[in-house]
Amino acid sequence: MSEPLGFIGLGIMGQPMALNLAKAGHKLAVYNRTPGKTAALEAAGARVADSPADAARDANVIIMIVSDSAAVESVVTSKGGILETLRSGTIIIDSSTISPTVSRKMACMVAGKGASWLDAAVTGSKHGAEKGELTFMIGGDRETFDRAMPILKIMGKKHIYCGSHGLGLSAKLAQNTIQATMVEVFCEGFVLATKAGVKPETMLEIIQASMARAGITDFKAPFIFKGDFTPYFPLKLMHKDLELAAEAGYAQGVPMPVLAAAKEVYMAAKAQGKGDQDYAAVVTFLEELAGVKVRT
Amino acid sequence: MSEPLGFIGLGIMGQPMALNLAKAGHKLAVYNRTPGKTAALEAAGARVADSPADAARDANVIIMIVSDSAAVESVVTSKGGILETLRSGTIIIDSSTISPTVSRKMACMVAGKGASWLDAAVTGSKHGAEKGELTFMIGGDRETFDRAMPILKIMGKKHIYCGSHGLGLSAKLAQNTIQATMVEVFCEGFVLATKAGVKPETMLEIIQASMARAGITDFKAPFIFKGDFTPYFPLKLMHKDLELAAEAGYAQGVPMPVLAAAKEVYMAAKAQGKGDQDYAAVVTFLEELAGVKVRT
Amino acid sequence: MSEPLGFIGLGIMGQPMALNLAKAGHKLAVYNRTPGKTAALEAAGARVADSPADAARDANVIIMIVSDSAAVESVVTSKGGILETLRSGTIIIDSSTISPTVSRKMACMVAGKGASWLDAAVTGSKHGAEKGELTFMIGGDRETFDRAMPILKIMGKKHIYCGSHGLGLSAKLAQNTIQATMVEVFCEGFVLATKAGVKPETMLEIIQASMARAGITDFKAPFIFKGDFTPYFPLKLMHKDLELAAEAGYAQGVPMPVLAAAKEVYMAAKAQGKGDQDYAAVVTFLEELAGVKVRT
Amino acid sequence: MSEPLGFIGLGIMGQPMALNLAKAGHKLAVYNRTPGKTAALEAAGARVADSPADAARDANVIIMIVSDSAAVESVVTSKGGILETLRSGTIIIDSSTISPTVSRKMACMVAGKGASWLDAAVTGSKHGAEKGELTFMIGGDRETFDRAMPILKIMGKKHIYCGSHGLGLSAKLAQNTIQATMVEVFCEGFVLATKAGVKPETMLEIIQASMARAGITDFKAPFIFKGDFTPYFPLKLMHKDLELAAEAGYAQGVPMPVLAAAKEVYMAAKAQGKGDQDYAAVVTFLEELAGVKVRT
Repeated sequence: MSEPLGFIGLGIMGQPMALNLAKAGHKLAVYNRTPGKTAALEAAGARVADSPADAARDANVIIMIVSDSAAVESVVTSKGGILETLRSGTIIIDSSTISPTVSRKMACMVAGKGASWLDAAVTGSKHGAEKGELTFMIGGDRETFDRAMPILKIMGKKHIYCGSHGLGLSAKLAQNTIQATMVEVFCEGFVLATKAGVKPETMLEIIQASMARAGITDFKAPFIFKGDFTPYFPLKLMHKDLELAAEAGYAQGVPMPVLAAAKEVYMAAKAQGKGDQDYAAVVTFLEELAGVKVRT
Repeated sequence: MSEPLGFIGLGIMGQPMALNLAKAGHKLAVYNRTPGKTAALEAAGARVADSPADAARDANVIIMIVSDSAAVESVVTSKGGILETLRSGTIIIDSSTISPTVSRKMACMVAGKGASWLDAAVTGSKHGAEKGELTFMIGGDRETFDRAMPILKIMGKKHIYCGSHGLGLSAKLAQNTIQATMVEVFCEGFVLATKAGVKPETMLEIIQASMARAGITDFKAPFIFKGDFTPYFPLKLMHKDLELAAEAGYAQGVPMPVLAAAKEVYMAAKAQGKGDQDYAAVVTFLEELAGVKVRT
Repeated sequence: MSEPLGFIGLGIMGQPMALNLAKAGHKLAVYNRTPGKTAALEAAGARVADSPADAARDANVIIMIVSDSAAVESVVTSKGGILETLRSGTIIIDSSTISPTVSRKMACMVAGKGASWLDAAVTGSKHGAEKGELTFMIGGDRETFDRAMPILKIMGKKHIYCGSHGLGLSAKLAQNTIQATMVEVFCEGFVLATKAGVKPETMLEIIQASMARAGITDFKAPFIFKGDFTPYFPLKLMHKDLELAAEAGYAQGVPMPVLAAAKEVYMAAKAQGKGDQDYAAVVTFLEELAGVKVRT
Repeated sequence: MSEPLGFIGLGIMGQPMALNLAKAGHKLAVYNRTPGKTAALEAAGARVADSPADAARDANVIIMIVSDSAAVESVVTSKGGILETLRSGTIIIDSSTISPTVSRKMACMVAGKGASWLDAAVTGSKHGAEKGELTFMIGGDRETFDRAMPILKIMGKKHIYCGSHGLGLSAKLAQNTIQATMVEVFCEGFVLATKAGVKPETMLEIIQASMARAGITDFKAPFIFKGDFTPYFPLKLMHKDLELAAEAGYAQGVPMPVLAAAKEVYMAAKAQGKGDQDYAAVVTFLEELAGVKVRT
């Protein structure tokens, strides 16, 4: 059954997510801050809104995925923001990776209009977004979660309810802490072994025969071996997520010394101008210092 | 065909490795620095030698797996060491995880007697050792590697030739750098999420649905969730391996900032008296500070 | 010449700063969020205001020193905040250590009322506050800086103009990054030497004879040697400042790997319940792990 | 009174130390591994020995200052080493910064010849060496310390007895841990402030008005501000000392997380080819990443 939806944020993830909703027959009003990204969606029948408020006007469900906490606050509260037209009963699914604290504040603000907020961070990279196979980590009311499921199912294949508002984001930040550090230390190990004289493909065979085998490093290794850092997930965004995780650690009183070290390595790689490359490009920061390349 | 073998070091790994050799019909002379660990091997027909030299006397192949660089040097060079009785043509398979530099020095010393040295570090924990399913990372001459294969096959299922002397160890140190840090940062992420209010089992479901899924954390998670730190691989030995990796990074000019941070967390946990527990006990260092337990 | 002043925040630093202003003959209206800290100021002739707005009502200059960015935002913008009564021409001197970004936002907001904002972070601990010997690091318009000088001179002996809005805070965060890390690494060094068997007083003699001699460690050493952690500057506030410095590093694209490591050690000490002690108590986190005390 | 002395190691520190002994009227036999550094000493009347053993032959006191643990072991034990000619009653003053463990081993070996060993690490840079104003940190027998004092007094102005063999080195490693980290974090702070827009000279004024003022950073700041990294103490040697300190922390069970982070920054700078510059060149690693220079 077709529902009127608003979709805000047509970036690397948002574009394919919105397209899947359009293809499923829903009636979309879409908005993106920078214009010129709407062609594919217009072709798929979507209306281009001229503001978040305009996208929200007729929507039963609003999906948003924008770059950071400030962007979410702006979409909700600034002039032309969704608060201006938000109707009681509307569900907002926010898939942006932002501060759990800011997300909870947004949940409160839209509750004042009778609407319901879900934080619904995703994992799966643009591939998963294209195939509708994302994993969603969701915080908010269980009842809203259940009501949103028909829409969520179009965009993803796994939807994990994490608890009250913000907990989907807490889970996401923990997941990226783990994943980003795994990639970084995989690179440290491979640079060490390569410098010693072990062939990268031999080292990979060892890792894959061991319990250190992991999905993300199986996926990234061939790209690292080719020096191909086309962004699946840009380094600057991973760095932003690590900063959010570090701030969450501070706020919650959780020491995170290894995250802290990994974050500075991503910071350094970003400072070298690698922010728009895939985050596996962190290997090049280490390679350049060690004077060796992990290439086959 | 039965061969005379020497086996030195009957610890958590050495004992089952030696037993597999005995069960395969080989004629073993075994030696362990501290007595009282030889009963099972005697029952399996092994002779108990009174020194490394005595264990080496009649051996075609000597297998050793002892605690650290100093122990290997002692087994080889001290009074009663294998240099005293080593015969030309003998192969020494050293599965100790030690400094690649020290290993290369030993290779030179035994070469003076016409013997051949392989560094043959293992991964797979005591389970793998018991089942003869270890993975060996091997450095040394390719021809010696080939000659040693019949013996190596009894103890392991995968044997990866890494290159010249010491490169098996270089690979092993890289592998443990990766694996130990993966476990540590998994714990940081789970403590963060748990403190926020996400259930550990929910967090694990997320990790397992994501590319951050890894063999080692799939294996350790149930133990962490029960607070069961029975040692598969003791924390103090993992810490020792990380120190060796850090020293290798220093020697080779490879910056390893994340390893450095992870090593200090294992150091802290060891300093708290957790060195004889499994290395997953590193989670308790974080838990105690954060005031939360990752338990189901 | 007596001027009507508002003073907001009567904590460990604010109380003696306000008293010096009162003693200099100025007419103060004082406000503190938690009541019961106003007795000394009432005795010195100050009026107790019932809100920041009330304290601001008649003031030519408003001085504030509160705990964090949120507290500053609240003092300025919430119901009863100073924006409600702020008059054109008023100067606000904010000595709170907060985010430079938040400070710049406040500067814009009060400018809308025709008032002028200075960020004026201080260093010198409560001793310096009592004696009117603080050092101020100041950002804002040079002309406002000059106009505020008569008031600033009562509270401090050194006033360093750092540039435009927020730069006093940037300097302060850099200064605390340096100072806090110096104290932490001084403790690492002393724990190492003490564990080896060097007497702490011998180690101090060495440091004092070397270029590693520093004001802060000369000051802290006797307290460390006695295990006296009466707060001159509480550990939790130093940790907060390090978090702000780390966030500034992130925002400005400056890698700060050593700050990141030091911050996690303060985090750990805070997590152990040492947040209200002096920040030199960071030594006890290291001592407890190392199993040795740096005591004479 | 003139005494026959052996002096081994004529590097950046050793050369001026030996010259001061020659100028004081002592009869020197000098040895340096790489030839061509002996001209100044020959001019001052020293005999050039062709091996450490030759330098030791007639000496009552042997002073040595060489690059690392391996070099000390070689000077003592290899063919042509001092053990070959060492006489009972001789004192060896070793001012090399090496592993305390190796130093203790050397002390045992020379004791077998009836000689006495002092570890006598120095601080003060080449300036202090030239002026005879070094500070010595000394481990060994108190009685040997007293006997060596007339010679020590020619080379330094302060001689601190730290305890038994190796403790002078333990103190030295702690001192360099502190000093190197102070310089590194000073650079982090200055890069942060400079990137924000604070002038380096303003930031220095702040530091010098605060308790964060330190001898080493007062000394290094003008060189940093000019980008002049002529080596007073080369970065690669400071990095080596930090590695020794980290290994001592490992051996003694002392967590040193901030040292670990600082060491990796020096490692990175060394990897960039800055090892022969002064260790203050660590600032350039941070500057290049941050895209700003701390220059006046």
